Amino acid sequence: MKIVIDTDPGQDDALTILLALASPEIELLGVTTVAGNVGVRQATINALKTMELAGRPDVPVHAGAERPLLRPLVNATHVHGRTGFEGVDLPDPTIEAAPGHAVDFLIRTVMGNAPGAITICAIGPMTNIALALSREPALRERIGRIVTMSGAFSEVGNITPTAEFNIYVDPHAAAIVLESGIPVTMLPLDVTHTLHTSDARLARFAALPNRVGPVVADWLRFEKRFEATKYGTDGGPLHDPNTVLWLLQPDLYRGREVNVQVETGSELTMGMTVVDWWGITKRPANVLFLRECDVDAAYDLITERLARF
Amino acid sequence: MKIVIDTDPGQDDALTILLALASPEIELLGVTTVAGNVGVRQATINALKTMELAGRPDVPVHAGAERPLLRPLVNATHVHGRTGFEGVDLPDPTIEAAPGHAVDFLIRTVMGNAPGAITICAIGPMTNIALALSREPALRERIGRIVTMSGAFSEVGNITPTAEFNIYVDPHAAAIVLESGIPVTMLPLDVTHTLHTSDARLARFAALPNRVGPVVADWLRFEKRFEATKYGTDGGPLHDPNTVLWLLQPDLYRGREVNVQVETGSELTMGMTVVDWWGITKRPANVLFLRECDVDAAYDLITERLARF
Amino acid sequence: MKIVIDTDPGQDDALTILLALASPEIELLGVTTVAGNVGVRQATINALKTMELAGRPDVPVHAGAERPLLRPLVNATHVHGRTGFEGVDLPDPTIEAAPGHAVDFLIRTVMGNAPGAITICAIGPMTNIALALSREPALRERIGRIVTMSGAFSEVGNITPTAEFNIYVDPHAAAIVLESGIPVTMLPLDVTHTLHTSDARLARFAALPNRVGPVVADWLRFEKRFEATKYGTDGGPLHDPNTVLWLLQPDLYRGREVNVQVETGSELTMGMTVVDWWGITKRPANVLFLRECDVDAAYDLITERLARF
Amino acid sequence: MKIVIDTDPGQDDALTILLALASPEIELLGVTTVAGNVGVRQATINALKTMELAGRPDVPVHAGAERPLLRPLVNATHVHGRTGFEGVDLPDPTIEAAPGHAVDFLIRTVMGNAPGAITICAIGPMTNIALALSREPALRERIGRIVTMSGAFSEVGNITPTAEFNIYVDPHAAAIVLESGIPVTMLPLDVTHTLHTSDARLARFAALPNRVGPVVADWLRFEKRFEATKYGTDGGPLHDPNTVLWLLQPDLYRGREVNVQVETGSELTMGMTVVDWWGITKRPANVLFLRECDVDAAYDLITERLARF
Repeated sequence: MKIVIDTDPGQDDALTILLALASPEIELLGVTTVAGNVGVRQATINALKTMELAGRPDVPVHAGAERPLLRPLVNATHVHGRTGFEGVDLPDPTIEAAPGHAVDFLIRTVMGNAPGAITICAIGPMTNIALALSREPALRERIGRIVTMSGAFSEVGNITPTAEFNIYVDPHAAAIVLESGIPVTMLPLDVTHTLHTSDARLARFAALPNRVGPVVADWLRFEKRFEATKYGTDGGPLHDPNTVLWLLQPDLYRGREVNVQVETGSELTMGMTVVDWWGITKRPANVLFLRECDVDAAYDLITERLARF
Repeated sequence: MKIVIDTDPGQDDALTILLALASPEIELLGVTTVAGNVGVRQATINALKTMELAGRPDVPVHAGAERPLLRPLVNATHVHGRTGFEGVDLPDPTIEAAPGHAVDFLIRTVMGNAPGAITICAIGPMTNIALALSREPALRERIGRIVTMSGAFSEVGNITPTAEFNIYVDPHAAAIVLESGIPVTMLPLDVTHTLHTSDARLARFAALPNRVGPVVADWLRFEKRFEATKYGTDGGPLHDPNTVLWLLQPDLYRGREVNVQVETGSELTMGMTVVDWWGITKRPANVLFLRECDVDAAYDLITERLARF
Repeated sequence: MKIVIDTDPGQDDALTILLALASPEIELLGVTTVAGNVGVRQATINALKTMELAGRPDVPVHAGAERPLLRPLVNATHVHGRTGFEGVDLPDPTIEAAPGHAVDFLIRTVMGNAPGAITICAIGPMTNIALALSREPALRERIGRIVTMSGAFSEVGNITPTAEFNIYVDPHAAAIVLESGIPVTMLPLDVTHTLHTSDARLARFAALPNRVGPVVADWLRFEKRFEATKYGTDGGPLHDPNTVLWLLQPDLYRGREVNVQVETGSELTMGMTVVDWWGITKRPANVLFLRECDVDAAYDLITERLARF
Repeated sequence: MKIVIDTDPGQDDALTILLALASPEIELLGVTTVAGNVGVRQATINALKTMELAGRPDVPVHAGAERPLLRPLVNATHVHGRTGFEGVDLPDPTIEAAPGHAVDFLIRTVMGNAPGAITICAIGPMTNIALALSREPALRERIGRIVTMSGAFSEVGNITPTAEFNIYVDPHAAAIVLESGIPVTMLPLDVTHTLHTSDARLARFAALPNRVGPVVADWLRFEKRFEATKYGTDGGPLHDPNTVLWLLQPDLYRGREVNVQVETGSELTMGMTVVDWWGITKRPANVLFLRECDVDAAYDLITERLARF
């Protein structure tokens, strides 16, 4: 499986990259960065740090869009800390971003492989992907699948009452992607909120006899503060890694092929994913929308993969 | 407790009226009708039939708004049948609607009682109530509470992917009511979908040794067809009676005081109740929004009350 | 011609009433007041003062809606002064508002006359008329015509870049009226801005050998301050009287039967009248939209009528 | 003056290119094409034909965006004919489009010249420019000015009652451009509708003793059919050439620095340019919005330039 991860790391974004790197089923062709949780400059530094932590400086990181298509950037430093990586002090990266814009890398990579060969894990705002689709419409026929952590249905929003953060930051980009005709798998808050980062689970990562496990544990321990407090729960949600977990083991998840639209016309519900779960509208399905996960098995899989470092 | 029920019967609306009539804690001052599940003419006939079924021709029924404020009328005959009362053939009413428009009755009743004395059960589109508030702004200080079956949060919509029927039919009216400053208790789909009208529960109504019980059982048996099929469940939801049940025994329900806004600006999410359950927006609370119910106790209460006829 | 004037006086509203009273072709059955330029209480006082100025305390004034249907009230005291009548100190009225709400008076008057017999001059926000239409849908078949000063096409807005004040204050009410099927004549800013209240024209009113002429001159001299400054012109526009002038002498005006929609879905263009002047949309015509006036003849007509007092 | 023309030719687009090529004050660095009046493939062919007609095969033509950012493509073959160039049969071009996407050419050209050195004439939908701005935010500081034929104020729309075609086709792109902080000169319908392509004016082009003049005359004779019929006038409007005319001789035009917003939130007014001509909103000016033109002088200038071929 050849994939590109488009991301705005963020602690859980970094874990997603690590899971991909640790998985022999997956060939990570590159990482593209985008403004979201943090600015694109910081996101790029964080992606580079992650490659060095994993001992994989060979995987190229391409910096991408600095801002959403239309709306001013909203970030999530209230969740991830100022650097996006609070919880662990990793050294400044010694490697540098690869030359060439993320959008060009996406286009070149997809067009340079067989039709359908490339999967994109979209775990930040979808600005880069939307720009690539606008710039090269042939991508619509060539991208095999977009697996995205974004959106929400019954859990509704985490940045407004109705919107999930990744969509809210660039709803127009998300609308472009969802209307592109490319197969999309969506891992929404409905799923990610069931994967509580409880102390017991993080303790398993911390106990791994390598460097990566404890770093991930510390990262998630920081990241969970905001939402564990907000929801009064033991742990916070685990968001982005679900994309790679689904690629590795789709039968951990259950959902439906449904129609999903993105609200871009009203400030009150801006960025909401309107999920027609019950097929009320007769609009054709454009998303495999997942709502349930075998959570313990998912954590087992993460632990097993992190142990490989 | 002095109440007025504003309604578009519908089988479950009729059960709501019956529960109010059967409850000594409640004095039902009158019923006002509105276009919704069925047209207002049919709604008025159905309300009158309900009074006769209950042996209470003395309770006045006032016909109200024929159409929503701005939008064309959408009805729910796909759920309730053509007459709104399918499932039982009740005789045509021999009594007639009381003279005077529903809006005038609402204003006169509220202004003629002590401030805060009157509770309105709003179990249809809120057109009449919005018109009354526009016509007589003093109602804002005088209505004690509006208890409404409407809206949705995590269960989202039943008429569009995001909108509940009563709000969708007249979202502008709902917006007027929710911004009026009047205390509102909202019984949304989140609650009503937990009160499955299972065969076992309907059998208890059917077994009551009076006329009302079997009629209610037959009504609900019809009404549940649409949604039991749609959701693949044993029974359908039970909607409107929750308003009177909450008045009788509020501790059957659990929820929060939160801010709720109605979407009126985008067709995609038209009529959605935007519920700020987690207080993200800092907008002040305007609704007691209920999400859970002690369902067996609720059915016990219904059964006990219907037994009184 | 039997008419009712629905109004929020405002100096030019008062002139409109005076023109109706001075015209034997017109029988002014009553005036209904609405919140707009000023609050409804002040609007009612101003209407009563106008009746006393005209020596017509017999014409009933009914107070109406205190606020727009959905939106908070915006007023125009920046144009009309705090009282709406600045420019002349008229004594407090000795007469009182007639009993009964404006909406009831409108319904009763229209339903109590022959179909089509009543024309409504709508020279404020259309809240009362919308409420009457919602309360009594039969009005749609009974009102002969609504002649309104409101809206704009090529001159666009005076309260936002795209919205005219009367529509902006209650766009939902205007939408209800324009979709009612009742024949509507619209006198928009396109017309009213051509009737400059120049010094020479006001001097003719001031020179009239009665009390009314000089009062009108002083009123308009005050009212024109804001817009004469804004537009850098000799006089301000003359708005509301065009409705009665059109009733008296429709051939003073030129326009077209076109489709007009009111924007209620976006804050940026809220309350705009979308005029399909060139028939691009194929939506059916619902408004006689006037764009030109024989201005000198219009002023002659005003002068001649004011001279009758 | 170094310029790039971003265009969807269209007859009047071609005239714009010809005027730039005929003007020694202007160095036309290249032409970028975009879907609009016709598809991007046809637009590119038409641009190449224009270069050959002008004897300037050296000026590169780069093909750009095939579709608007979010909305499905709407074209204007009802005005320009199926090919965009109806009226004259020009031979198929022997030259080809330059390699490299329009967006890359725009970025490379602007970044490779001194800050402020490059002016972009945007005479089609602004998709390419918006993509370039999203891809390379530094352009915001580097583009000297964008001169665009688009938008409307008092003449309102030509594709819907409120929207001008170029903005309507890609309102999101236009919003990105207008909020970029780049100086913008807008030549709206208010101006272009005053430059009637009357028979007398076209006869002057036709009489020019070269090949270009008669071709332009025939093109405009075709293009004017639609609107001359619609408006019942002698000629149609002349749109895109105003951008180059303004660059050559800005004192031919009069307007104001004002705030302009693009409506993207409501289907009714989608793509409207909301022009705050009177400074009602206090939003800062972002556009030099022109409303008047010295029309005879403009035609003299066109004629004089076309004579140079």
